[in-house]
Amino acid sequence: MKKISFESDYIQGCHEAILNRFTETNYEQLSGYGVDRYCESAKQKIKAACQSENSEVFLLTGGTQTNQLVIDTMLDSCEAVISAKTGHINGHEAGAIEYTGHKVLEIAQENGKIDISALEQLLQAFHGDANNQHMATPKMIYLSHPTEYGTLYTFAELRRISDICKKNGLYLYIDGARLGYGLMAKGSDVTLPDLARLCDAFYIGGTKVGALCGEAVVFAEGRTPKKFFTKIKQHGALLAKGRLLGIQFDTLFTNDLYFQISKHAIDMAEELKALFTARGFQFFLDSPTNQIFIILENRLYQTLSEQVGVGFWEQYDDTHTVIRFATSWATRREDIAQLDQILREITE
Amino acid sequence: MKKISFESDYIQGCHEAILNRFTETNYEQLSGYGVDRYCESAKQKIKAACQSENSEVFLLTGGTQTNQLVIDTMLDSCEAVISAKTGHINGHEAGAIEYTGHKVLEIAQENGKIDISALEQLLQAFHGDANNQHMATPKMIYLSHPTEYGTLYTFAELRRISDICKKNGLYLYIDGARLGYGLMAKGSDVTLPDLARLCDAFYIGGTKVGALCGEAVVFAEGRTPKKFFTKIKQHGALLAKGRLLGIQFDTLFTNDLYFQISKHAIDMAEELKALFTARGFQFFLDSPTNQIFIILENRLYQTLSEQVGVGFWEQYDDTHTVIRFATSWATRREDIAQLDQILREITE
Amino acid sequence: MKKISFESDYIQGCHEAILNRFTETNYEQLSGYGVDRYCESAKQKIKAACQSENSEVFLLTGGTQTNQLVIDTMLDSCEAVISAKTGHINGHEAGAIEYTGHKVLEIAQENGKIDISALEQLLQAFHGDANNQHMATPKMIYLSHPTEYGTLYTFAELRRISDICKKNGLYLYIDGARLGYGLMAKGSDVTLPDLARLCDAFYIGGTKVGALCGEAVVFAEGRTPKKFFTKIKQHGALLAKGRLLGIQFDTLFTNDLYFQISKHAIDMAEELKALFTARGFQFFLDSPTNQIFIILENRLYQTLSEQVGVGFWEQYDDTHTVIRFATSWATRREDIAQLDQILREITE
Amino acid sequence: MKKISFESDYIQGCHEAILNRFTETNYEQLSGYGVDRYCESAKQKIKAACQSENSEVFLLTGGTQTNQLVIDTMLDSCEAVISAKTGHINGHEAGAIEYTGHKVLEIAQENGKIDISALEQLLQAFHGDANNQHMATPKMIYLSHPTEYGTLYTFAELRRISDICKKNGLYLYIDGARLGYGLMAKGSDVTLPDLARLCDAFYIGGTKVGALCGEAVVFAEGRTPKKFFTKIKQHGALLAKGRLLGIQFDTLFTNDLYFQISKHAIDMAEELKALFTARGFQFFLDSPTNQIFIILENRLYQTLSEQVGVGFWEQYDDTHTVIRFATSWATRREDIAQLDQILREITE
Repeated sequence: MKKISFESDYIQGCHEAILNRFTETNYEQLSGYGVDRYCESAKQKIKAACQSENSEVFLLTGGTQTNQLVIDTMLDSCEAVISAKTGHINGHEAGAIEYTGHKVLEIAQENGKIDISALEQLLQAFHGDANNQHMATPKMIYLSHPTEYGTLYTFAELRRISDICKKNGLYLYIDGARLGYGLMAKGSDVTLPDLARLCDAFYIGGTKVGALCGEAVVFAEGRTPKKFFTKIKQHGALLAKGRLLGIQFDTLFTNDLYFQISKHAIDMAEELKALFTARGFQFFLDSPTNQIFIILENRLYQTLSEQVGVGFWEQYDDTHTVIRFATSWATRREDIAQLDQILREITE
Repeated sequence: MKKISFESDYIQGCHEAILNRFTETNYEQLSGYGVDRYCESAKQKIKAACQSENSEVFLLTGGTQTNQLVIDTMLDSCEAVISAKTGHINGHEAGAIEYTGHKVLEIAQENGKIDISALEQLLQAFHGDANNQHMATPKMIYLSHPTEYGTLYTFAELRRISDICKKNGLYLYIDGARLGYGLMAKGSDVTLPDLARLCDAFYIGGTKVGALCGEAVVFAEGRTPKKFFTKIKQHGALLAKGRLLGIQFDTLFTNDLYFQISKHAIDMAEELKALFTARGFQFFLDSPTNQIFIILENRLYQTLSEQVGVGFWEQYDDTHTVIRFATSWATRREDIAQLDQILREITE
Repeated sequence: MKKISFESDYIQGCHEAILNRFTETNYEQLSGYGVDRYCESAKQKIKAACQSENSEVFLLTGGTQTNQLVIDTMLDSCEAVISAKTGHINGHEAGAIEYTGHKVLEIAQENGKIDISALEQLLQAFHGDANNQHMATPKMIYLSHPTEYGTLYTFAELRRISDICKKNGLYLYIDGARLGYGLMAKGSDVTLPDLARLCDAFYIGGTKVGALCGEAVVFAEGRTPKKFFTKIKQHGALLAKGRLLGIQFDTLFTNDLYFQISKHAIDMAEELKALFTARGFQFFLDSPTNQIFIILENRLYQTLSEQVGVGFWEQYDDTHTVIRFATSWATRREDIAQLDQILREITE
Repeated sequence: MKKISFESDYIQGCHEAILNRFTETNYEQLSGYGVDRYCESAKQKIKAACQSENSEVFLLTGGTQTNQLVIDTMLDSCEAVISAKTGHINGHEAGAIEYTGHKVLEIAQENGKIDISALEQLLQAFHGDANNQHMATPKMIYLSHPTEYGTLYTFAELRRISDICKKNGLYLYIDGARLGYGLMAKGSDVTLPDLARLCDAFYIGGTKVGALCGEAVVFAEGRTPKKFFTKIKQHGALLAKGRLLGIQFDTLFTNDLYFQISKHAIDMAEELKALFTARGFQFFLDSPTNQIFIILENRLYQTLSEQVGVGFWEQYDDTHTVIRFATSWATRREDIAQLDQILREITE
């Protein structure tokens, strides 16, 4: 690790309030497997934040685990999930969805967002095909919000996708690994209650937003898969000490902590963008959330990466590279000042 | 069914020589599960036809079963298979590959054939990605020959793909559901021994080439998956009366019957193409094998399909449809003459 | 193979009536995938024989395939099937049920039949366990009739098991690989309509009762799994030429052929038993169907097996072996006379 | 929760040294996915404690997850794992092993320990069966140490089982969910280096021995499954913040903390046993580790459980119940004194 790093939003531990709660509650004797008072309280607070009392909330450990479990248990065995080609489940989860038996139907995207006309085309082609009984049935749309490129859907776009789902009998499932950063992005018009209304299921990411681990899945009323608890166990995803997740989410959803620390990451990202703009760097795309993609000349990238942790994203061309800077709940103003200093030194 | 039909190449029973052999051998008492003398003889004849004594041959029942079993058992659990977007395993096998846990990595194609530069790009992207441990590992290339569009790879193309496989540590697996029709197509420069040399595994289709059912998988030396027999059983693919397959393939590979009846289907297809050309029909693509794709005005399609069985392929535009005519080992000259007569009536 | 063989009931081809029907229908042009007129007719005849018009019938190729497909698609992913320890799915299907994700809960048996008190005990233990959400849920009882030991359940026993199923929300599924031989056994009080009434699903075995391959699954009203056709395809179990199964079952269920040839095998088995009794052989158990188990002194077994094909069953003790003689639809009186002759020679 | 509880060994948080280390390291910027310095240090310390530099160590989150992942990745798809009927994987993991495709072959046990003669019998039967290609192949022995009943294998027993494994080409895999309590039990002659020598793989339980979560898998040299990292991801078991596990195990294996806190739990269990003996309670079995099983008259159980958290184990007879008391790293002398007081009140 470099002295400072913007490599990702999961390079530091967790918000101090969580550590404090771990300490305060450490010797309380609590039942295992997620039925303790902290899990219960966390679920109630999340439902309240979603303004959706009839939803059901489950706490899981990580993002791939959550995607795998939700998709596998909501879908029947021959049903498939539609994802942008760049969707996390399609590329970077080591085939976890296919491992549980389900096809990922990839469709075109732009800056990480599903191309809605490609979606409509796929559904039309399927329903118009007389031989579609020989095909995996599209039954769910997966999208990430923010996307893998830090971009956001508008409320109107999500509602349109939701309408397509309803019309075609599909589930809408949103991967919110970085949801806080999406909700608090400048100009975003999507709220947690909106998601609860539009989705059949979605998850509120903790790992990248202030927790050591943990994702909270919210199922709309009537959408919790049958025997979901048993299936969590069966997938190897049930923690004996459910308190590990309960305490974290209870803390994050007390006094809006989740939203405040998300807002902080956005503020830091805005400062970072201002800094890049001021120095004349070229943005790879326009991301309103905590991930910023910059096109750097290869030599500059080399020099920079000796002093600052950044994420390699992709080769832009023979002489340039796209790199990612991520802010988080833990990014400090000093880090940005230090980065500014380094950039000055290497570019002047 | 219409009076005559070109709907597919599996609408009739099997070659009479097979029925005769069933009758002659019916009361012989044979061991079960594929170890009888007919299975043994069939395997020997197939190896001889492949000029590959060290290959191993297994007889299975159907194409999807064969693809599923071969791919699942050759690949490790986190390994993926690359296929053209139009590959049979990618679209029309109801997610059978994913059901057994493997991702199908789809790439661009043209007329059903893998776009080789897209293939190289995918492999380069994978090997150049520092995070590829988080991805399903591409480990096999699947292609069909003839393709789903009736087109053929040249020997040079197959060798180039084979070289890419060797260079990247991939298996080359060819789906030969209609292999006979490919081998006997005019101008094809690919032989059975070529396939045995270039592929790690391929199958010789029986169901569509004169058998009631059955596909013969050929594994190159050292490529037979460990405990393959047990895995056939575990996949529900082991026949108690292995003779059903043994007798059929023994017959098909006696006196070149497989090649002769394939040649017949090609001859019939050539006559069909001549007929369509003569009548000014528009071809959707140029297929050298037993499948012919014609673009028909919708009303004409409607009228024709009342008298002749044809396969709907896809909507071409608002007023035209692509339809498929398939010939087979069982197509008769009279059928073509009758089709000619019908076409004359409805077009004049 | 020996000159004569009683090794199993699948050592010969198929009933001649089937071969004749293959020949007669060979050039008829029929749609693929099981929607042809012969499949339809076979299904109607089977429903009529079951006196159960609202059942649904599907034709599959083999026994393990059928068990795997029916169990996997009727059960939810965390549900388990209960089987006698000696059940075919538990021992001799290479883990095919587990391969599709389901636990087989084995219970005690006697002569192949489920120990009903062990069954009740398992269910009581499960329902009484406060932690049973951590366990695979028993949801189906699998039994074979005749059992792997050739024994039969009485109607009263099946009704009692069916009652246990209803009371506990379980499915009753019967593996009828040798069903004909069970229905026609002397003293059996179970009929096909009984099975249709008592079971949620069962299959009528063809492979061992006169067909080259094929098993007919009967689902009770409302019990057909969702998208079953697509799942057949997904499991690699869908035949392109559905006629192969349709013609066979249509023939077997025309003019009671299935029952007649089953009766013949039973008659032959009775003669065989008489012969063994007359010669003072010791029976391993009392089987009323087409499988007869004899305890032979090892040296005698050795000598006999040089002239007659028999099935090794298990080592009885250091000096004796249990061997199986199976009759079938194809067993001839001459075979039995010849066996008698051989036995005389080697025992006198 | 009652005022005091002996319900299980996972009712409290984690050892304070771990909380302190979380706090101290919280803002260090560390790479994700388990390649940080704490994971590395933890692995080195564990290998040192095992006196096995060539082993490979991986840190996972929970016990079922670990069992599922290790068993699935060490076994080929048609291979099975042998377990005592009472083994955790056989009963209380919701079919997690079967979910990944593997059969659990259950054998007889006594007080939770594998019946070695039953094991030998199973292997002999398998190898002696001419049809064993139709069966799932036994390839691994799973046992828990301590067992689910708190009992322990002796070194001689483990060596004998290990010898059986070597002779039969099986892997030996030990589930050490409560390993510390086994290693520190009075009279135990099994050490961590012994396990590293005897096993192909085993895991050192953290969740029940002082951690919030976490299990450390140790693979013997050459036994790490191919692409294990990718398969962790594919199973949804890879934590983004690997530090969560690294810091915990690094702390537990610094200055023998793991062994000290395990010893403490054993001391507490010994006091508990002395107390039960003094008061004339009946032990269900003789457990040398941290779980104590007592047979209580039902009314007494009722009264007691109003004041003390205990684990229901099983119904002993109509009037008695077996209950479990578990001590742990967190059990205090005051808790035992308080229990003593309560027992006095309700029994006198």
